[in-house]
Amino acid sequence: MRKLRTVKPEIRILGVDDGFFVPHQPGKCTIIGVVFRGGYWLEGIMRTQVEVDGVDATSKITEMITRSQHHGQLRVIMLDGITFAGFNVVDVSELSEAVGLPVIAVTREKPNFEEIHKALENLSFTEKRWNAISNQERFFEIPGRQKSRIFIQIAGLELKIAKEVVVKTSTRSNIPEPLRVAHLIASGLTVPNCK
Amino acid sequence: MRKLRTVKPEIRILGVDDGFFVPHQPGKCTIIGVVFRGGYWLEGIMRTQVEVDGVDATSKITEMITRSQHHGQLRVIMLDGITFAGFNVVDVSELSEAVGLPVIAVTREKPNFEEIHKALENLSFTEKRWNAISNQERFFEIPGRQKSRIFIQIAGLELKIAKEVVVKTSTRSNIPEPLRVAHLIASGLTVPNCK
Repeated sequence: MRKLRTVKPEIRILGVDDGFFVPHQPGKCTIIGVVFRGGYWLEGIMRTQVEVDGVDATSKITEMITRSQHHGQLRVIMLDGITFAGFNVVDVSELSEAVGLPVIAVTREKPNFEEIHKALENLSFTEKRWNAISNQERFFEIPGRQKSRIFIQIAGLELKIAKEVVVKTSTRSNIPEPLRVAHLIASGLTVPNCK
Repeated sequence: MRKLRTVKPEIRILGVDDGFFVPHQPGKCTIIGVVFRGGYWLEGIMRTQVEVDGVDATSKITEMITRSQHHGQLRVIMLDGITFAGFNVVDVSELSEAVGLPVIAVTREKPNFEEIHKALENLSFTEKRWNAISNQERFFEIPGRQKSRIFIQIAGLELKIAKEVVVKTSTRSNIPEPLRVAHLIASGLTVPNCK
């Protein structure tokens, strides 16, 4: 595991988000990864596909990162939350260990764990998904830019360093740039539920 | 036509580039437009598709821009050259008039007009393509960043202003950011020759 002790302004971060998908309908959803330099500029793009409401998000994102030419330069992985394509849950600890890098999952709203638990009861692998989601000991509320609050789940780095990454990369909005840009690209370019 | 008299650092520019395609084979090629603030940050994404070696690039890019929610805010259109998806030529004057905005097409290498003319003889609409390509009275060589030279073709704005746009937006490389980022996204995400 590559330890992160200091956060350089131009640190290489991968921001990961999902594209459009029709909820509860079988099919694949495109996942976009953007290689970003701190809160400043885009350096590369990668993508993969995961099943809507599937259980392959952790393995597919791992594969996308380890196969990429950018893997060796990356210092942190940032995820837009931990659920992709519906309830395809990323286990941040598993991802962090598999790619050898710290992971920070960011959400703007506090997850309602009771509601999520109920929804999961209708899906396969309920316990596996629930364990990844409810891993609350690493779930933190931190101050964002301009008095905003954001919620993060972390693996492979200290909370203090994770906060610093979030603050230093939120240059244009309350959301870190790697995630704002991943979201713009993923939602602007992907086609819902491919085969 | 919206006149461009001053170039604000955060001017809204659309950068347009094409994705992968297999040359000389029928099919469509994805075109990506990125809405960029000066040489700094991404604000939006749009896309369309044009025929490989077709003659619909001008009309399809016009449609992509005029249908977009960003159209009213844009001040300049920048193109990565004037040939897309092979020899699907954009007529910069026609595009500029159709969208009511100045257009700057940028290339790093001076086009070899003799070679292009030869290649066009094997395609339909030879004269139409050639007229758009050889419109040399608005073709200029200008100094880029770090002693580089770049070539631009312009419509709807003065050369002096066009130079200023190119220089002010080339913040990360010798290529204006809207085009560098459009290229990264288009080549990283598109699928060759869709149906």
